Amino acid sequence: MTGQGEKLLFREEGVELSLDDVYDAREIVSKHAKVTPVFTNSTISGLCGRELFFKMEVFQKTGSFKIRGALNAIFSMTDEQAKNGVVTHSSGNHAQATALAAKLRGIPAYIVVPENAPKVKVAAIKGYGGNITFCGLTMQDREDACNKIQREKGSHFVAPFNAKETICGQATIGLELMEQTELGLDAIVVPISGGGMISGIALAAKSLNPKIKIIAAEPRGVNDAADAHKSKAAGALQVDAVKPKTLADGLQAKMGNLTWAVVRDLVDDVVVVEEAEIVSAMQLVYERMKVVVEPSGAVGVAAALSEEMAAKFPPQSFPRVGVVLCGGNADFSVVDFWANWTKRWQSF
Amino acid sequence: MTGQGEKLLFREEGVELSLDDVYDAREIVSKHAKVTPVFTNSTISGLCGRELFFKMEVFQKTGSFKIRGALNAIFSMTDEQAKNGVVTHSSGNHAQATALAAKLRGIPAYIVVPENAPKVKVAAIKGYGGNITFCGLTMQDREDACNKIQREKGSHFVAPFNAKETICGQATIGLELMEQTELGLDAIVVPISGGGMISGIALAAKSLNPKIKIIAAEPRGVNDAADAHKSKAAGALQVDAVKPKTLADGLQAKMGNLTWAVVRDLVDDVVVVEEAEIVSAMQLVYERMKVVVEPSGAVGVAAALSEEMAAKFPPQSFPRVGVVLCGGNADFSVVDFWANWTKRWQSF
Repeated sequence: MTGQGEKLLFREEGVELSLDDVYDAREIVSKHAKVTPVFTNSTISGLCGRELFFKMEVFQKTGSFKIRGALNAIFSMTDEQAKNGVVTHSSGNHAQATALAAKLRGIPAYIVVPENAPKVKVAAIKGYGGNITFCGLTMQDREDACNKIQREKGSHFVAPFNAKETICGQATIGLELMEQTELGLDAIVVPISGGGMISGIALAAKSLNPKIKIIAAEPRGVNDAADAHKSKAAGALQVDAVKPKTLADGLQAKMGNLTWAVVRDLVDDVVVVEEAEIVSAMQLVYERMKVVVEPSGAVGVAAALSEEMAAKFPPQSFPRVGVVLCGGNADFSVVDFWANWTKRWQSF
Repeated sequence: MTGQGEKLLFREEGVELSLDDVYDAREIVSKHAKVTPVFTNSTISGLCGRELFFKMEVFQKTGSFKIRGALNAIFSMTDEQAKNGVVTHSSGNHAQATALAAKLRGIPAYIVVPENAPKVKVAAIKGYGGNITFCGLTMQDREDACNKIQREKGSHFVAPFNAKETICGQATIGLELMEQTELGLDAIVVPISGGGMISGIALAAKSLNPKIKIIAAEPRGVNDAADAHKSKAAGALQVDAVKPKTLADGLQAKMGNLTWAVVRDLVDDVVVVEEAEIVSAMQLVYERMKVVVEPSGAVGVAAALSEEMAAKFPPQSFPRVGVVLCGGNADFSVVDFWANWTKRWQSF
């Protein structure tokens, strides 16, 4: 890992990554994705005692930031690499993103989905033109199904987080947020799962302002499975960590070797939040910002509101903080939301 | 009512209103309210077969457009008129708006609220500094309580819709939307209740583009109580109309003499929507736009999606249509939304 301000940002595990790679990614991403706005909210800022700047990736195409990495990966491929389409495994935002990015390039996308995936997510992937293959519930089942498709169709794997192209694609969030706030942020809070988003943002933001703090927000889960927190505390990637049980279903992946290297060196701290804090943060965002955020997307807000954050990064020293609202694909069916509205008028 | 393009927009019932009055209102409103953005959405536009431009009053201060009229009314008052504060009756968005606008002017706001108003709305009014007086459930109860406060405190009444200042305040939505779309709209769909918003928008929009169609969106209610539709069909204000029972709790007022005069002359049609259509429209806005809209605020989207709209205003003749998402103060407690999220993680 190089220091800040140098052209080469990252040289690790045989991969080199420079700020130029991030600007190249923006060339690609900006052709098809939105430059999402930055919102402010006086009520939520007031509760935190500092000014928050929300990067609204909920309004991004496909409803989450994942389209950035998928676009960069798929449009960086040569025609030869792309000719047999792409394959990935995901039941969530990365699946939708890969399907849409492939559709935009005009190549097929094969998406391996666990057989228990919510119907609404399967429908969304199909809506973006993805070809679905169902598999069993373990990571091994997913990888086996992916490998089979790669073998049989010759399709190119689109990594959800642990690849240079994905990291550079997500890094464009950091470039935009830094520019939109005129480099005036003291810290950025980013939800962490596989680490693709936070490593991209850390690389971009720290290259533009070496003093900025990058803070990961992670759910503890009802089974105390905050693996990024544990890895940072141990100074080594905890590969055997159990999978968290949490409302934040988008934050259940483990870091890979590349993303861990960036998190290890450039992420300043990990703030861990409870499930009840995630629900409170969602409620604030819905009711005060009028924005639909999924549980994973609210984890950064929960961290920004937490006592741990106030203690470690006091408002007087860190008065301006960015928070990434990374996704809005909340599954309303699990709380019978629309059925309840319908019941309500039927009872009049 | 004068024609289009002339300076005098309206002379009726002893009230004169010109485009200059609307620009004066913008001077006042723009000091304290937001210029809300215009959003587009390819999925919802695709369903309508035309391009929709959503005016995002859900992101307005207090969560609805009502702050515009309240600001214009309260900041147009002389110091003498303002010295004993203001009074109004409302359990909804106008109450919050009046409380905040009065707070911004530094005068007390007395808000008469029916005793069955939801606790969450009462809390919001108090949060903006409003002084609450509870009253009975009839309109007479409300007016009696208001009159008593006017008599005892000498406070000035802030009309929710049927007053020049209110209409001019809401008209600023129309000015902004016309400018943000570079005068390129063929029609604007606006939810109707007391008619303050639609009459303001109609006056502003038709003065800038006489050909633009202004379409009211109204819930039929489970008791078939679409009074704007009935009034337009009869050519006379239906004053004895029953109060609609509808999820759209913000659309239960009746027009007044001023707003009816504008609706009669400048509103081109009324599209009536069913309760199920309101829920479907809300679901689309939540799931595809990631925006929290209250039922009243979704009524315009429901109308834009309706067969009636497609038949009366075919997409090929009206390809670019504005839709006002007028409020986002959805009452989640009625569908146990947050309790359901909490139950969900507790069951893990």
